[in-house]
Amino acid sequence: MDTADIAQKIISGDRRALARAITLIESARADHRTQAAALMEALKSAGKQAVRIGLSGTPGVGKSTFIESFGLMLTAQGLRVAVLAVDPSSARSGGSILGDKTRMERLSRDPAAFIRPSPSQSHLGGVARRTREAVALCEAAGFDVVLIETVGVGQSETVVAEMSDLFVLLLAPAGGDELQGVKRGIMEMADLILVNKADGDLKPAAMRTCSDYAGALRLLRKRPQDPEGYPKAMTVSALQDEGLHRAWDEMTALVNWRRDTGHFDGRRAEQARYWFGQEVRQGLLARLETPAARATMQDYAARVAAGEMTPTIAAAEVLRQIDS
Amino acid sequence: MDTADIAQKIISGDRRALARAITLIESARADHRTQAAALMEALKSAGKQAVRIGLSGTPGVGKSTFIESFGLMLTAQGLRVAVLAVDPSSARSGGSILGDKTRMERLSRDPAAFIRPSPSQSHLGGVARRTREAVALCEAAGFDVVLIETVGVGQSETVVAEMSDLFVLLLAPAGGDELQGVKRGIMEMADLILVNKADGDLKPAAMRTCSDYAGALRLLRKRPQDPEGYPKAMTVSALQDEGLHRAWDEMTALVNWRRDTGHFDGRRAEQARYWFGQEVRQGLLARLETPAARATMQDYAARVAAGEMTPTIAAAEVLRQIDS
Repeated sequence: MDTADIAQKIISGDRRALARAITLIESARADHRTQAAALMEALKSAGKQAVRIGLSGTPGVGKSTFIESFGLMLTAQGLRVAVLAVDPSSARSGGSILGDKTRMERLSRDPAAFIRPSPSQSHLGGVARRTREAVALCEAAGFDVVLIETVGVGQSETVVAEMSDLFVLLLAPAGGDELQGVKRGIMEMADLILVNKADGDLKPAAMRTCSDYAGALRLLRKRPQDPEGYPKAMTVSALQDEGLHRAWDEMTALVNWRRDTGHFDGRRAEQARYWFGQEVRQGLLARLETPAARATMQDYAARVAAGEMTPTIAAAEVLRQIDS
Repeated sequence: MDTADIAQKIISGDRRALARAITLIESARADHRTQAAALMEALKSAGKQAVRIGLSGTPGVGKSTFIESFGLMLTAQGLRVAVLAVDPSSARSGGSILGDKTRMERLSRDPAAFIRPSPSQSHLGGVARRTREAVALCEAAGFDVVLIETVGVGQSETVVAEMSDLFVLLLAPAGGDELQGVKRGIMEMADLILVNKADGDLKPAAMRTCSDYAGALRLLRKRPQDPEGYPKAMTVSALQDEGLHRAWDEMTALVNWRRDTGHFDGRRAEQARYWFGQEVRQGLLARLETPAARATMQDYAARVAAGEMTPTIAAAEVLRQIDS
């Protein structure tokens, strides 16, 4: 099937075409990569725009329950929701297709929802590109909201934040007044902090944690992309379906403000620049991964290790040989 | 002056030749880089080996006082000591030559000591290469001990550990039983933890901190390069000159064990491989820094930001143009 054909089917909302297109972009085969690049190019003018929400939460905060409840709340409003994941560790666990569908059973049966697990790639760069392209595919397919979740391993939060319009941090109630070791860098990326499990016995702890984070957020420097009073911290209970409408209201208010002030488009443009730079650097470094380059590298590494050459001279020689 | 001449002078212990050679390797000029690479190549067979000690400590732990006391203790034993630094932030503060000489006044006047501040470079990669080459120069010049200090900003500890035979973590006494927020990764790199300021009022706190760290070290997985009982935590007082001999005894015991078991040479070989890989990658990425490449990048980044091209297609085009 030719690219224009697939593109047309995706734009018309054909779910099977979408699923197969995502499989295509996840492939590492050279001919698939070429076809995928052409498909992305063909779809970029589809002119549809979803709200891309990045969601980070460590295991135990109730992320699956949140996504399920939040997703069902959105589809009940007539919105179409896609759920993607960035989880570089899923390559080792052999993918999480079964896991994703099982842990969000009701949402996965919802015809207005589309759930796709993290691509199985061993390095974050590969996961990032494929997820970024899957986001664009879902957007072209007319989804209103694309949720991109991550467990927050290593740099994966940055990757997700760089492909999202909104970055939401999901937390569990903490004991005492400690801030759960959330790194300052992650806090600074957050547009909304949601303290989940604000139900039953945990409700007081959730409210305390929320107020701690609200205080911490006020100490951060105001960002140009935020109206007064943002970013916010709120409590929710995904289990009891509480606070989810309010959280969505905050998200849409923030998105609307950013659309009106140009920050929404500005951020997307910045993100495109960022990914372009990443692609160039990764593409350049990929030249060291060909069998010939690997052999050359190994050869010179052995000489360097044996003290026959300095790293600098050996590196210059390798770079000269890769070019020729 | 030709390279063989400079090399000969350095090997014979000419301090001015050493200082000028370091200035040469710190230069970014292409002809200087070529000359520096030739010099390093000429010196690699000098066959002299120093003990390279990486020292990390945040401001306030008494690092300068420690280096001065420790350095003077070594020179009093007839050893020659060089002190280098990895501090990527020094580029912003305009270098710290005056600072380094002032804060280690007695050591800087000792004829058996050589102190050189961190090269002024804005990025860690540049600081790393230049410091690594300065270490090799000092080694060729016959220094017995090369101390490489870092304030521990970002990745600088890894950089220092990757060019050291021993990695020493200098800490201050902590209140209570908390572990001063030392990251697990840094703990795992340490060969010796020294809790400084074990004098006067702070002595009990220093001993408590030391015992906390000794406990934490025991929880880490045993590394093949360590004999039984290592890594260790000890208290010292740089101010009152206490524990420094004992610390040096531990260092030499560890170095001797590693020399006997082959781990010393093995680690140096691994480090050479590591730096070779870094040099190749940095050399490759440097191709994006030429004026022509920057102009091409800017051109395509603008198109990507405007939504005219996808990052993937634009990156492929840039990589094609850089080659031609």
